[in-house]
Amino acid sequence: MKKIAVLLSGCGVFDGSEIHEAVLTLLALSKAGVSYQCFAPDIPQLHVVNHLSGEVASEQRNVLVEAARIARGDIKATADLEVSAFDGLIIPGGFGAAKNLCDFALAGTDTTLTPAVDHFIRQFIDAKKVIGFICIAPVMIPRLYGKGAKGTIGSDADTASAFCAMGGEHIEAKVADIVVDNERKIVSTPAYMLASSIAEANTGIEKLVTEVLELA
Amino acid sequence: MKKIAVLLSGCGVFDGSEIHEAVLTLLALSKAGVSYQCFAPDIPQLHVVNHLSGEVASEQRNVLVEAARIARGDIKATADLEVSAFDGLIIPGGFGAAKNLCDFALAGTDTTLTPAVDHFIRQFIDAKKVIGFICIAPVMIPRLYGKGAKGTIGSDADTASAFCAMGGEHIEAKVADIVVDNERKIVSTPAYMLASSIAEANTGIEKLVTEVLELA
Repeated sequence: MKKIAVLLSGCGVFDGSEIHEAVLTLLALSKAGVSYQCFAPDIPQLHVVNHLSGEVASEQRNVLVEAARIARGDIKATADLEVSAFDGLIIPGGFGAAKNLCDFALAGTDTTLTPAVDHFIRQFIDAKKVIGFICIAPVMIPRLYGKGAKGTIGSDADTASAFCAMGGEHIEAKVADIVVDNERKIVSTPAYMLASSIAEANTGIEKLVTEVLELA
Repeated sequence: MKKIAVLLSGCGVFDGSEIHEAVLTLLALSKAGVSYQCFAPDIPQLHVVNHLSGEVASEQRNVLVEAARIARGDIKATADLEVSAFDGLIIPGGFGAAKNLCDFALAGTDTTLTPAVDHFIRQFIDAKKVIGFICIAPVMIPRLYGKGAKGTIGSDADTASAFCAMGGEHIEAKVADIVVDNERKIVSTPAYMLASSIAEANTGIEKLVTEVLELA
């Protein structure tokens, strides 16, 4: 049975993993009869956002502890990865991907990956394992794979332009599309960068999971 | 287009709404082309549970503010319900249903519903609108509908016995089953009371949503 790691970045679209994207990823893996393990970095969140008001709250939360909510408690710290146990990795979106996994939300094209996250993802790349990036998570592709790596964040002009400025090759895509870099084993889909409903987000995520399993 | 209200109880299986059940409900509604609106009571959570350690944390969180994470910010307080705008209601499970919507987790068969929640749900019952109860949420059925109301929490002997002690008629069910009380327009399914995977939870939830829409 194939086994896929899922990297979460908290719990909530404005400061962590986009919950629908994360759950739809787990659902597609489970329906495919594939085993999965959730991971998250054991670090403080950049922000805690009140999702009712949209305002930044003064409290502190931990990425791993909050991501455990999506994983129903069954989650590991990124430091505890044994990469040989996995056939691939999927990274859902949400602002947590651009605030906690890297700092794209603040630094734009000067972004760097959070060290624990960088170390975690590079183990999959070094082992030539497939990685699926959802929504805003593909902004990490140019940093991780270098010049010419292909990916999509949908059709947002500013983000696409940042993707290219960092050395990536951005390919415009619709919500139900996936973009595949076969050479580097990268799959990406826009999900809530474009989706106007959860059913729409699901179409692209189902395709991404199918392709990740194909390349796994 | 039909419109369904979804009543959340926080964000996380141990102190709020079970996230998978809530998202799977929204997915099934969205795939059916049905519009939905999330609601939650604007009250403090009974507990905040650290979902990594399983321990109760000392902090305070608000049910509505945390539930907004599942709803991507698009949520209303239960006090803001205009029941005539809706064709039915669905209530996902998670300990939040037994800690924040009512106090079954503490009081067992002496449970009462939280006043704001009781008022919210009774508006649907008084208007003879269908209600779907998922996972542990059906423990509210006997209090809400009185003697003889049918429902299921799966096959857990203690919870089934409490359901009957409160006056309900408990019907044992498997994870993919739904139980329908046609007279009172109640639908229930066990979901994570029995599910060993998210795909299993999804089978029952899809059936529940289909039946709720049939009776709406």
